[in-house]
Amino acid sequence: MSSSTVDGSVEKRSIEKQPAEKQPAEGRPAPAVLTAAIVTVSDSCARGQRADLSGPAVAEVLKKRAFRVVATQIVQDDSMQIQNALVHLAIEVRFIVTTGGTGIAPRDVTPEATEAICDRLIDGVAERMRLESTKKTAFAALSRGVCGARGKSLILNLPGSPSGAVESLEAVLDLIPHALNLLEGKTEHS
Amino acid sequence: MSSSTVDGSVEKRSIEKQPAEKQPAEGRPAPAVLTAAIVTVSDSCARGQRADLSGPAVAEVLKKRAFRVVATQIVQDDSMQIQNALVHLAIEVRFIVTTGGTGIAPRDVTPEATEAICDRLIDGVAERMRLESTKKTAFAALSRGVCGARGKSLILNLPGSPSGAVESLEAVLDLIPHALNLLEGKTEHS
Amino acid sequence: MSSSTVDGSVEKRSIEKQPAEKQPAEGRPAPAVLTAAIVTVSDSCARGQRADLSGPAVAEVLKKRAFRVVATQIVQDDSMQIQNALVHLAIEVRFIVTTGGTGIAPRDVTPEATEAICDRLIDGVAERMRLESTKKTAFAALSRGVCGARGKSLILNLPGSPSGAVESLEAVLDLIPHALNLLEGKTEHS
Repeated sequence: MSSSTVDGSVEKRSIEKQPAEKQPAEGRPAPAVLTAAIVTVSDSCARGQRADLSGPAVAEVLKKRAFRVVATQIVQDDSMQIQNALVHLAIEVRFIVTTGGTGIAPRDVTPEATEAICDRLIDGVAERMRLESTKKTAFAALSRGVCGARGKSLILNLPGSPSGAVESLEAVLDLIPHALNLLEGKTEHS
Repeated sequence: MSSSTVDGSVEKRSIEKQPAEKQPAEGRPAPAVLTAAIVTVSDSCARGQRADLSGPAVAEVLKKRAFRVVATQIVQDDSMQIQNALVHLAIEVRFIVTTGGTGIAPRDVTPEATEAICDRLIDGVAERMRLESTKKTAFAALSRGVCGARGKSLILNLPGSPSGAVESLEAVLDLIPHALNLLEGKTEHS
Repeated sequence: MSSSTVDGSVEKRSIEKQPAEKQPAEGRPAPAVLTAAIVTVSDSCARGQRADLSGPAVAEVLKKRAFRVVATQIVQDDSMQIQNALVHLAIEVRFIVTTGGTGIAPRDVTPEATEAICDRLIDGVAERMRLESTKKTAFAALSRGVCGARGKSLILNLPGSPSGAVESLEAVLDLIPHALNLLEGKTEHS
């Protein structure tokens, strides 16, 4: 896998500058700021034929919850492009969210691409997203999004619709900081 | 895998003639009629030692929901027989339902046989069947039935008891027409 | 895999003597007594740096439910040690419970070790444990414990905390005697 392939696979890439973090009140430890990245998986967004609405909607939720969104990217519904984006982002970023490509249409390959580059999956997180989402629409049962770990990074697949993506993310976001601590080995486990 | 093996594996096979579809009211598009097949997986039914009650119960539910049941088949609890039946049916039929062989007894091999011939699984559908069924009986948690896609066809494993099969089917049947559209690529996905 | 490796992998082993079973009331068949074993998976317990609280808590629950706990063992968070313990216990014992190593920290390998030596998994049991446990704490979604069969034996992964282990076990314990009957082929299935 050459780096040119990787660069070639990325249709759009932007690094968002974040405002400086607020200083913590004196005497209190600064809350840990967790880095996040968003990968929008969509042929039409990658081609510029459609505006990416899910990525920004997900970014909004993450920022409200003290994540620093350090990278956003748009890739096609192509397994290699998705894998390349995830592998590169996981070097630096702790929480990587994808939107799109989780359904059962022939071009939906995000779950398989994610599984291919994860060390292990956390089925309970995917179950929880589906369970919460099916309270809104029964069709959420067709979403095949997974959650997995690659090294110390966590990767979470969200559906492609802005509302579906936000609902699914909110269903599990409370778990993520703790999960990231566990992945780093910050645990009572022994 | 020779075709003689395939034919040899099918204990009973019948093609049910369906009544002609009702004509749609003038000016309205005809509702799409989806084809369905039922594979009863049971050693004793295949041997003719027991009447197949689940297959007809499932057929009744499908017909009420505008599926045209074009084939029914009874096979033994044998992985090759199950795979052969599913592979052949998936050439022509869009929705293939199995009943039986989903438990944890040594002869229960339907889920493994289904996985072996599916392109991919849709875990959320299996989860939903179990979640609904466990409201009736906790033992439904032992059902290992899966739902998967092979090409444009959807395959769904139901338990062997008539009531369990009908309950599990009804828990997810609303999703099937939409799922079949997605498999055919009829989607906003791009 | 030599037997010396197996013996070397077991940090502590004890066979608990059970009180004699009560005689059944005259004219009634004796209730079947099912054998159980508990494997505590914990580096610090195996090193003797921490007392094993989960193992005894789980044993208490099992004994109340007519299981005869015939073996308890403590092993490190090491895949080979876990596999060796499970493989040996499954020769004699019908229900084997593990506690610990089900999370997502780097040393948590109990689910993978269990999958490696099981003939097949029963996803619905793991789903049920998580569903019940998440009613107490959302973090239960991060538990990756599985339930699987090896021959006629059932293996169930519980989390490491005493309360989590007991809650998860109680969520599915009603299913176990029936599941063990099915594994032995005592079923109407045919």
